[in-house]
Amino acid sequence: MKKLINDPKDVVAQSVEGFADAHADIVRAEFDPTFVVRVDAPVSGKVGIVSGGGSGHEPLHAGFVGFGMLDAAVPGPVFTSPTPDPILAATKAVDAGAGVLHIVKNYTGDVLNFETAADLAEADGIETESVVIDDDVAVQDSLFTAGRRGVAGTVLVEKIAGASAQRGDSLAQVADMARRVNANVRTMGVALTPCVVPHAGEPSFELADDEIEIGIGIHGEPGREKIALESADRIVDRLLEPILADLRIEKGDNALLLVNGMGGTPLIELYIVYRHAAKVLADRGVTVSRKHVGNVTTSLEMQGASISVLKLDSEFVELWDAPVQTAGLRWGR
Amino acid sequence: MKKLINDPKDVVAQSVEGFADAHADIVRAEFDPTFVVRVDAPVSGKVGIVSGGGSGHEPLHAGFVGFGMLDAAVPGPVFTSPTPDPILAATKAVDAGAGVLHIVKNYTGDVLNFETAADLAEADGIETESVVIDDDVAVQDSLFTAGRRGVAGTVLVEKIAGASAQRGDSLAQVADMARRVNANVRTMGVALTPCVVPHAGEPSFELADDEIEIGIGIHGEPGREKIALESADRIVDRLLEPILADLRIEKGDNALLLVNGMGGTPLIELYIVYRHAAKVLADRGVTVSRKHVGNVTTSLEMQGASISVLKLDSEFVELWDAPVQTAGLRWGR
Repeated sequence: MKKLINDPKDVVAQSVEGFADAHADIVRAEFDPTFVVRVDAPVSGKVGIVSGGGSGHEPLHAGFVGFGMLDAAVPGPVFTSPTPDPILAATKAVDAGAGVLHIVKNYTGDVLNFETAADLAEADGIETESVVIDDDVAVQDSLFTAGRRGVAGTVLVEKIAGASAQRGDSLAQVADMARRVNANVRTMGVALTPCVVPHAGEPSFELADDEIEIGIGIHGEPGREKIALESADRIVDRLLEPILADLRIEKGDNALLLVNGMGGTPLIELYIVYRHAAKVLADRGVTVSRKHVGNVTTSLEMQGASISVLKLDSEFVELWDAPVQTAGLRWGR
Repeated sequence: MKKLINDPKDVVAQSVEGFADAHADIVRAEFDPTFVVRVDAPVSGKVGIVSGGGSGHEPLHAGFVGFGMLDAAVPGPVFTSPTPDPILAATKAVDAGAGVLHIVKNYTGDVLNFETAADLAEADGIETESVVIDDDVAVQDSLFTAGRRGVAGTVLVEKIAGASAQRGDSLAQVADMARRVNANVRTMGVALTPCVVPHAGEPSFELADDEIEIGIGIHGEPGREKIALESADRIVDRLLEPILADLRIEKGDNALLLVNGMGGTPLIELYIVYRHAAKVLADRGVTVSRKHVGNVTTSLEMQGASISVLKLDSEFVELWDAPVQTAGLRWGR
């Protein structure tokens, strides 16, 4: 294992420290328990939004804390759910009386711990709503999941629900917006290499020198199949096929196309993936009117990528375009 | 070699196609010869800025084309200088009568080809200036270099000179600004793994399982030494020592700290690097008043990072903070 780290047990704390220091204009970090919160939280009158989960997917989630997106993020240990305690603390820190939305990727530990934290927050008089993200079409159930996994589509939910909260929508409206995005986004990924969890020190799974895994999870959970390496275009076809079949997107529809890097794949490759994915959509008569290419939901240093397609309506477009000021996404203000 | 590519010979063209499609609001691409140019070029009355070099360092340079930074970028084949022809075409495309600045990383091929293109442009009546970037303190001469190499500090030159051009400074002023940034920035990098050039298909150099290379170049050129893997903090100390000695930065000075990922290193590690680098500077009494963490000058999928320190003055700060709208850097507008 070769990583730019100190003691494996300090990875999350030291990375969060560095993150909060580098982005002190946007966030601050708390460490007992650990969470990252907007520097101006709680924002008077605004619904708060908290997300979180195991670390190792940076910039998800802390990189999306800031104006127009999340109010707080709760980073657990690498690939391990945070406990209810920091989730509750983050929920309290962002509550301004308008209620708090939890955006939770669909993994058993995350769902359970966010539920417990929500119950405790409610007992403290904080109104909460929870939206569980399950955009990954690769597999129905998985190692850590009942039902589909939540992956890179989460970022689109966080951006659009975040803009909904920022413009002053109610908790019910923001939660409904998040659910609508989740219902309209589908994702599938591919791994070229495994990744190494620092405290494990070993690759999370094995791939031969000429082998890739189609439908990989963001923790290295098994996908659909291991196959021999193919051309980027053919791999993109394999990822888009189930996405488009499941999403039932049609000629004349508008889409947001997200090409997400898994952490170890360089931009030069992600744009080759984007190029063909955009062509496939155009060939189907779908207009790619919004797009994003970059590392937004990673799996440590894994080489690979995922493709997400969000069926757009005019409200999604307006909220996607709305100003955002976070470490990971920044525009329009 | 496992990469998300099609035919190795199409990597640059297909990546540029995808890039231009994904960022059509900011840039357009030309393919005969190949360059990427601001969608609104030439910008009336403004000094044009052109940079370029071998591909494989994305987002450098095309990712920095746009308002407030570069007017055009010329991507050569992977790790290979572009010929004078596309550099000349890009120079003509951005010339609005106020002259054109070439920002050139110090590699023999780049320097030569930009010089030839500048001579041809001058013959066509376009006034040009050229600034050669040599911020890498690791080695004096290198595989492809007489003198120091140009590495991640180039991005700081492009941002600050870009803002100088955008506010209407003359060609002499913009060139002087670029030279002043280059004179005040130092960089050094480390590699944990080599990278594979697509058309070569083999790693560019070898590193054992527990070995790293201190002072690596962005094409895998040899650095200062191969050593056994150490803690992130110790590695940061090794990189900062020669940077700070050479820069002669002192107690009370202001600095911009850039932690750059080489392409395959995840953000969670880059923030651990940032954390300690910021501490070392603070301990020396240097105020890190501006900072950036991310992949800005990569070496394909190489794992590793570089640290750059720019000694700031108030003009640098003003120009760094000025609005920029590119694929790779975006703020303030």
